[in-house]
Amino acid sequence: MENRTVAPENASLGDEIVARIDELGKISETSEHLTRIFLTKQHRAAADLILGWMREAGMRADLDAIGNVCGRYEGERPGLPCLMLGSHYDTVRDAGKWDGPLGLITAIACVADLNKRGKRLPFAVEVTGFADEEGIRFASTLLGSRAVAGTFDERVLGVRDKAGVSMREALSQFGFDPQRIGTAARARSELLAYVELHIEQGPVLETEHLPVGVVTAISGATRLAVVLTGMAGHAGTVPMALRRDALAGAAECVVAIEKFCRTDEGLVGTVGTIDAVPGATNVIPGRVSFAIDMRAASDAHRRKAVADVVRQIERIAGRRELALQIDVTHENRTVPCAPWLRRQVANAIAAEGFGVFELPSGAGHDGMAMIDIADVAMVFVRCRGGISHHPDEHVDTADAGTGARVLLRLIENFRPRDAAS
Amino acid sequence: MENRTVAPENASLGDEIVARIDELGKISETSEHLTRIFLTKQHRAAADLILGWMREAGMRADLDAIGNVCGRYEGERPGLPCLMLGSHYDTVRDAGKWDGPLGLITAIACVADLNKRGKRLPFAVEVTGFADEEGIRFASTLLGSRAVAGTFDERVLGVRDKAGVSMREALSQFGFDPQRIGTAARARSELLAYVELHIEQGPVLETEHLPVGVVTAISGATRLAVVLTGMAGHAGTVPMALRRDALAGAAECVVAIEKFCRTDEGLVGTVGTIDAVPGATNVIPGRVSFAIDMRAASDAHRRKAVADVVRQIERIAGRRELALQIDVTHENRTVPCAPWLRRQVANAIAAEGFGVFELPSGAGHDGMAMIDIADVAMVFVRCRGGISHHPDEHVDTADAGTGARVLLRLIENFRPRDAAS
Repeated sequence: MENRTVAPENASLGDEIVARIDELGKISETSEHLTRIFLTKQHRAAADLILGWMREAGMRADLDAIGNVCGRYEGERPGLPCLMLGSHYDTVRDAGKWDGPLGLITAIACVADLNKRGKRLPFAVEVTGFADEEGIRFASTLLGSRAVAGTFDERVLGVRDKAGVSMREALSQFGFDPQRIGTAARARSELLAYVELHIEQGPVLETEHLPVGVVTAISGATRLAVVLTGMAGHAGTVPMALRRDALAGAAECVVAIEKFCRTDEGLVGTVGTIDAVPGATNVIPGRVSFAIDMRAASDAHRRKAVADVVRQIERIAGRRELALQIDVTHENRTVPCAPWLRRQVANAIAAEGFGVFELPSGAGHDGMAMIDIADVAMVFVRCRGGISHHPDEHVDTADAGTGARVLLRLIENFRPRDAAS
Repeated sequence: MENRTVAPENASLGDEIVARIDELGKISETSEHLTRIFLTKQHRAAADLILGWMREAGMRADLDAIGNVCGRYEGERPGLPCLMLGSHYDTVRDAGKWDGPLGLITAIACVADLNKRGKRLPFAVEVTGFADEEGIRFASTLLGSRAVAGTFDERVLGVRDKAGVSMREALSQFGFDPQRIGTAARARSELLAYVELHIEQGPVLETEHLPVGVVTAISGATRLAVVLTGMAGHAGTVPMALRRDALAGAAECVVAIEKFCRTDEGLVGTVGTIDAVPGATNVIPGRVSFAIDMRAASDAHRRKAVADVVRQIERIAGRRELALQIDVTHENRTVPCAPWLRRQVANAIAAEGFGVFELPSGAGHDGMAMIDIADVAMVFVRCRGGISHHPDEHVDTADAGTGARVLLRLIENFRPRDAAS
């Protein structure tokens, strides 16, 4: 019954969202390539636009101390704990316009819908647009959500961008006081949950012919830097049996990593970079470095897989008499989505008439920071061809609308953990 | 008996040769890195030094029209056809001092020995120091020996070096007339054979514990440029089963090439360069290019092997749904060493008391050009660790001496083809 009430009123939600995605997408460093970086003129212009949308939707809205846009729609009485919705509004360089903004604009649209109907809930709804998730400028991701979670690392203030400007200086130039970042932090007691809608950035929902999906976890990631050292030599004069070819060894590792990950559901492993030295057509490579990125929906699964892959690489290097160096260059814990929240997302999807499909998020999201002050859930929206971080990134209007209806239904039916469990 | 006559007199041949290698090795663009390039001041200085050594050894000696040093030691009467010995005296950048000069200096030392003993043979002995074998300056190898063989390609005169100087201009600045390169060409009737002593530039003789070896052929080479195109994607969001990872495909090709060449005696295959695009740790490579260098001691063998490898790559690309482009970027025919000359080299080695070991030359040499006007043979001298084109290139003095004694014995016992067969 509720399905019938909501759907006709919100038939145009998708169109409104897409129009705003386009409008926000015009705020960019250059007109040809969408690039919107933390603490720049474009950051300011985008924040002003979003704050306007928030106020129009009936929210009290302002920037916090790090440049996040924070909107609040009070509940049945002022000062209630909130269901926080959000996503980020910074971009990578030469970005698509959906990654981040879709979740933020959809959340605002949902609140606008509640407001239009004069609907107040037994909790407040907040929408946060995080100022820096991608980490393009200061080589450190999730700066906005970490400030909100109270886990911002003050050392980042000293990091300089490519132009030599430190984050501290950039904040001051933006009109902010670097000393006051701590004031952006929120208390666990203020939040009932954090829920983010985001484009999938992968091809799974498209393959499943589903517009939306329930995220099970934000996969942790381990990155390894591998260096294999053999012996360079003339491509014509060293017989195969006398070679210690570092590239042939690396190639065997790449094939082994792929094979291992293929046979292990829920695991992904990628070699994204490879460099062979000296790198001449007629010289056997003496040294090869490559990077491995491994992700799984649980830390235990990922750690075991990483250990297995390292053992395989050690065996390959040993058999080929190649010297081996492996370093862990990066490690992110897995952030599981809370089962009680996942159920509510699943119920909202089912109520909209779609199959409930669960999938992990292989990409990182602000929930990785928000988990420190709230239970987290995510709704994924299908994107075309799984393409993201690219101008070709695309979401169909119908899917944007479906995402919005799912989120709106989730908000209206939301029950806090104690009540839900 | 001859063994006893020659050996004591020439006990110090190795020392003399090594002293000259050191002296010539000092003529370099920079004092830290040995670099001696065609038509430079260093070319001139080296030529003057070598011409002096040739004259001291009783030869008439001069530069030809392309800057080769040409020495002639008359036979029992003037004007007889010659046994031509030679090698090159240009270097790669940051070179070792043995590659080229060892053969040239050894040949001069042998003639000096004949001259000292007043020994005239029923043929002339010529020693040619080729001015450009490596092809560093004008991106075209064997310029010196091609001029002698009459196969110099006049189009190279228009090629410019990195400083924008054409070969034509460089010749003029060197004091040469670019119109007169044709005069460097020799007639087939003037040569009885071309024999070159050279460091192996590979580890085979060292592995066999032998100071010298008989070259069976200068292996032909085919170089292929391969481009595999799949689909770039996020390392975290694209499940293994939905990937078209160009690097995983390339790695499978590299492993297959190595495996194929390992099982096929006399064949070598090398992937020396690889480039993955976009080349980020967290992005599945969408396009990978790599180069294959394949060599074998016969053209038929190499061509069959190239065709087999191409078929394997096609299969791998097809199975992985990767677009494939393969281009042949370079092809050199195999230059077989003449059996009648190989026998004489083998006899000389055996007479010096060493085992006769035959091996192909995987590297290119001036014989590849000289084959057009003469039958060709080569003597390889062991080098340490198979290292060449590197400052660590090294030949033991004892091996340099052995090489000289073998070459001297070969000269003294040399019988032209008609007499030999």
